[in-house]
Amino acid sequence: MKKGLLIVLSGPSGVGKGTVIKELMKNDDLKLSYSISMTTRKPRNGEVDGVNYFFVDRDTFLKAIDDGELLEHAEFVGNMYGTPVSYVEKLRNEGRNVLLEIEVQGAMQVKKKCPDALSIFIIPPSMEELASRIRGRNSEPEEIVQQRLDKAKKEMEMVTQYKYVVCNDDVILASDIISAIIKRHMQIKSN
Amino acid sequence: MKKGLLIVLSGPSGVGKGTVIKELMKNDDLKLSYSISMTTRKPRNGEVDGVNYFFVDRDTFLKAIDDGELLEHAEFVGNMYGTPVSYVEKLRNEGRNVLLEIEVQGAMQVKKKCPDALSIFIIPPSMEELASRIRGRNSEPEEIVQQRLDKAKKEMEMVTQYKYVVCNDDVILASDIISAIIKRHMQIKSN
Repeated sequence: MKKGLLIVLSGPSGVGKGTVIKELMKNDDLKLSYSISMTTRKPRNGEVDGVNYFFVDRDTFLKAIDDGELLEHAEFVGNMYGTPVSYVEKLRNEGRNVLLEIEVQGAMQVKKKCPDALSIFIIPPSMEELASRIRGRNSEPEEIVQQRLDKAKKEMEMVTQYKYVVCNDDVILASDIISAIIKRHMQIKSN
Repeated sequence: MKKGLLIVLSGPSGVGKGTVIKELMKNDDLKLSYSISMTTRKPRNGEVDGVNYFFVDRDTFLKAIDDGELLEHAEFVGNMYGTPVSYVEKLRNEGRNVLLEIEVQGAMQVKKKCPDALSIFIIPPSMEELASRIRGRNSEPEEIVQQRLDKAKKEMEMVTQYKYVVCNDDVILASDIISAIIKRHMQIKSN
């Protein structure tokens, strides 16, 4: 069994990462699996430990960081989220290509720990288009939209840190291009 | 018969356009055809009019420009080269996707006349890699290599004028990505 790839996918909020990933997941040849994150957040109704998340308390989370058990981690609104190395490695050893949809900061942590990770950054066709997608998606106040755009602009500056940059002008084409990238790396790895 | 696409491919000298195109040409599904250029240059031994080039005198060439019969044109070392609209249209009307490998200036002329042209710019993984490719290809004096690199840097600034930017780190992957772009546009056109 060939070890699977580790694929890091980032891109500004509103760029359409979710739709692209949904399209990629339809293609079984890509052997994609999601990783399961570890979090200190309390389970919501119906969420199952080991399925939606690995639910842990803060001490366990901090110990996991200290012990180098997390590929990356970040804090959002008081809760910690991270990617356990062991689960990612388990999937990769089963031949699955593990897809991490993470923010730029997390991606940089992964890059340090796994230099062979395949990093892909999705960009919008233009900032105007990104703005209109963000406006179209929710009916958020203009102030929030501007905050998202400012954040997006900062994230876009990190684009050079990624191995591949794919423009999401057309979801099918963006996922076709990412498929080509993944397939080529599966091929290189198996040679 | 669906009208074929017009595909403009540019990229700095040394980036590997030729190798990528050779790879693309292997794939019959892409229905790629080269255009034949018009030139004032004298035929070399074995070159056939209407096969290698449309050979014309300078007056005929200048008249073709005036009459709007050229999609783009440029002068190199005293000879004029251009792309005849009529031949490109003939191929496209036969359902062929016409590939123009032209310099940035020519590509901008095509863009003006054919806003539906699919423009693709091939970039090197880095300027260091481009330099080493240029150095590896010929044993040119360092001065010439530097001139090529300076020209490449200027050309790279035009990258935003192109619809797609593809990095040629790996020839197979670069041509796979360009194939995906062409196929997707064939699909969109036929919908």
